[in-house]
Amino acid sequence: MRKGKGAATLSIPAAGGEGTLDAQSASTTTPVLALERWLARKLLELSGHPRVSIVLWNGEEVPGAAAPLARMHIRDRDALYRLIRHPYLHFGDLYSVGRIEIEGDLVQFLETAYRGFDSARDTWFTQLQHLLNRPRANTPADSRENIHHHYDLGNEEFYELWLDREAMQYTCAYFPDPGMTLEDAQRAKMDHVCRKLRLKPGDRVAEAGCGWGGLARHMARYYGATVRAYNISHEQVAYARGQAAAQGLAGRVEYVEDDYRNIDGEYDVFVSVGMLEHVGRDHYRTLGAVADRCLTEAGRGLIHSIGRDQAERMVAWIEQRIFPGAYPPTLREMMEIFEPNGFSVLDVENLRLHYAKTLEHWLARFDLHAEEIERIFDGAFVRAWRLYLAGSQAGFLAGTLQLFQIVFTRGTNNDLPWSREYLYR
Amino acid sequence: MRKGKGAATLSIPAAGGEGTLDAQSASTTTPVLALERWLARKLLELSGHPRVSIVLWNGEEVPGAAAPLARMHIRDRDALYRLIRHPYLHFGDLYSVGRIEIEGDLVQFLETAYRGFDSARDTWFTQLQHLLNRPRANTPADSRENIHHHYDLGNEEFYELWLDREAMQYTCAYFPDPGMTLEDAQRAKMDHVCRKLRLKPGDRVAEAGCGWGGLARHMARYYGATVRAYNISHEQVAYARGQAAAQGLAGRVEYVEDDYRNIDGEYDVFVSVGMLEHVGRDHYRTLGAVADRCLTEAGRGLIHSIGRDQAERMVAWIEQRIFPGAYPPTLREMMEIFEPNGFSVLDVENLRLHYAKTLEHWLARFDLHAEEIERIFDGAFVRAWRLYLAGSQAGFLAGTLQLFQIVFTRGTNNDLPWSREYLYR
Repeated sequence: MRKGKGAATLSIPAAGGEGTLDAQSASTTTPVLALERWLARKLLELSGHPRVSIVLWNGEEVPGAAAPLARMHIRDRDALYRLIRHPYLHFGDLYSVGRIEIEGDLVQFLETAYRGFDSARDTWFTQLQHLLNRPRANTPADSRENIHHHYDLGNEEFYELWLDREAMQYTCAYFPDPGMTLEDAQRAKMDHVCRKLRLKPGDRVAEAGCGWGGLARHMARYYGATVRAYNISHEQVAYARGQAAAQGLAGRVEYVEDDYRNIDGEYDVFVSVGMLEHVGRDHYRTLGAVADRCLTEAGRGLIHSIGRDQAERMVAWIEQRIFPGAYPPTLREMMEIFEPNGFSVLDVENLRLHYAKTLEHWLARFDLHAEEIERIFDGAFVRAWRLYLAGSQAGFLAGTLQLFQIVFTRGTNNDLPWSREYLYR
Repeated sequence: MRKGKGAATLSIPAAGGEGTLDAQSASTTTPVLALERWLARKLLELSGHPRVSIVLWNGEEVPGAAAPLARMHIRDRDALYRLIRHPYLHFGDLYSVGRIEIEGDLVQFLETAYRGFDSARDTWFTQLQHLLNRPRANTPADSRENIHHHYDLGNEEFYELWLDREAMQYTCAYFPDPGMTLEDAQRAKMDHVCRKLRLKPGDRVAEAGCGWGGLARHMARYYGATVRAYNISHEQVAYARGQAAAQGLAGRVEYVEDDYRNIDGEYDVFVSVGMLEHVGRDHYRTLGAVADRCLTEAGRGLIHSIGRDQAERMVAWIEQRIFPGAYPPTLREMMEIFEPNGFSVLDVENLRLHYAKTLEHWLARFDLHAEEIERIFDGAFVRAWRLYLAGSQAGFLAGTLQLFQIVFTRGTNNDLPWSREYLYR
């Protein structure tokens, strides 16, 4: 799908063995059968009555709850049947190729849809989804492939267009004041993390999954720490090294192109921001064992991850098209990192609305650059990414996604602050 | 054991069907066999080499790790065998009747013992303990009996001697400054809880397990809330009502002598401080369902409880002699309150060292009044309670016990503060 380099990110054809999904032209002359009208009503009903109406391909409107926030246009008959067969997967694909369109605000549409789905939990929708596919395991080789899929996407040329300009943080920012700029909020996030870790000059830090390396540079530059940061994305590591060299930090920040499971050495601090979602449920204990292996007796750790209030698979479309292998864990599941490895949880903060705000900024910037992105990739790519960003924002607004920051230390360590007041000075 | 009212709290004879444990006189003339010397060494070794030496009944010292912090005197042969058979239960009983004595600081002795036990996890000690007894279930009738066992112990005449004088808080205080008085720290705890709940005038509060009612009165008096507080201890409820009437709060605080499972009505806030430890593992989901039943859409909740980093039974002696039915849960186990009931965890704070500090104050005041308490009860009671308070302090210092404060709300509620800075103004 990508014009140029050839590393396609969005492979719509593959799913479910249902053949290629193309931008079938709208079929306004195909009649709507009574069965199809009934199916459209049923779709709304079984989705928990979101504030949405459906407009079918002949222009006929199937009303939803009173005062709809948006209209969903289904442009052809096949699209309706696909949507019913596997809504969580096909909605995204059909939207991407323009066979489903949303009239009204996309984020509001998705938020009401998520709240509806949530209230309709345990209906056939959810059950169907669980039956239809299994998550991918994450062996080191898989991890490499999954990460390559997402992050090696033309690297900074694409992500620089809509992430914060200073630190290229592709994780939740922190908005103590919701009116802050994205750049200020990403800096505030990094400072919040560093303060929670009580980072001080000379501290040795291991970072598991470092993205484009912004946090590692921030820790070295403003806190005097020495950081060894691990990442399996070749392009991200190359970018991070370039930045560190340009900022004169090469001696204090080392980027290692390797899996977090291979972190070695002794550290005062273990930090991982936005990696756990990609680690896979079976590996939480291993992640904790890595922290246990490399932390000193009074070492401090922080895990920052998207999460859930209740265990649930990632939406199939996100999992298959955007983030293969991704899974946002519940707090209960995350305890597998700490409990078996003798760690004590000191502090958990839920920053759900901060991620919604972060995504609002990303989406606005993405839309500003939509034409440029369409020139690099194509229209379907732009629509798919817009849906992904809007859907994530809606998920955080509707409470189907959470963002947890967890501070931990060894259970035997008594070097603890007496209050969290120091975080807010 | 209690002189006077007759409601004995400490029933040493019952345990393990091993007959009455009495204050057998020390037998300095009984020779120490080679086997017994070996058993004493083994005891230290299998306890994870705490910094303790053992002095046997003939005065012979079995050295432990270098630089012992304390000496444990075993006054007769039978005491040694009992200690080996069931250390977690019999140590407390033997200490209470004076057949084991500690030379040196009791808290330091217990802390090094706990740290040793912790490192020797999965040896026969732990396994033996798990084999030997099962925890009690908590039906409403059991709960009543368990609570009566502990809290109806002569009521304020006893507890007023060593709890804070203002609010009679028999739960962890909050010491943002570790040099605070106990009274200041208990007030700070109540304010910390009220701030976390964003309590405001007119809020309706349900409190599950209210002790002597101090928090409920604090919420009404300083925050303008209307509180309905539940407790199954008849004597505590009577005391709480008397205090509320005396402070002119009777119209705004209602104390209900009933089980938390019977809370009814609609509330803006659900709070439970120090009850979960007594609720029993099988009832967490029910507790969450009660909160779900009575909270409004934007309702806020807080659970404050002793906890653990890893699932483990309460020490047998505490469970059988002091707190029948008590169980401190892990965070993972506590999630059973929230996950099945659609709640979202917003904030978790671990106040472990604050409970150690609270117990340090309690123990110091208890010791100041030891003679008075001995006149009401007897010497064994004083020794048992000293051990219980010192052992709890040691447990929080050694990290075998935690204190979790958890703030929650419905997963759909977006009325959330943007930072926790308001807690620290």
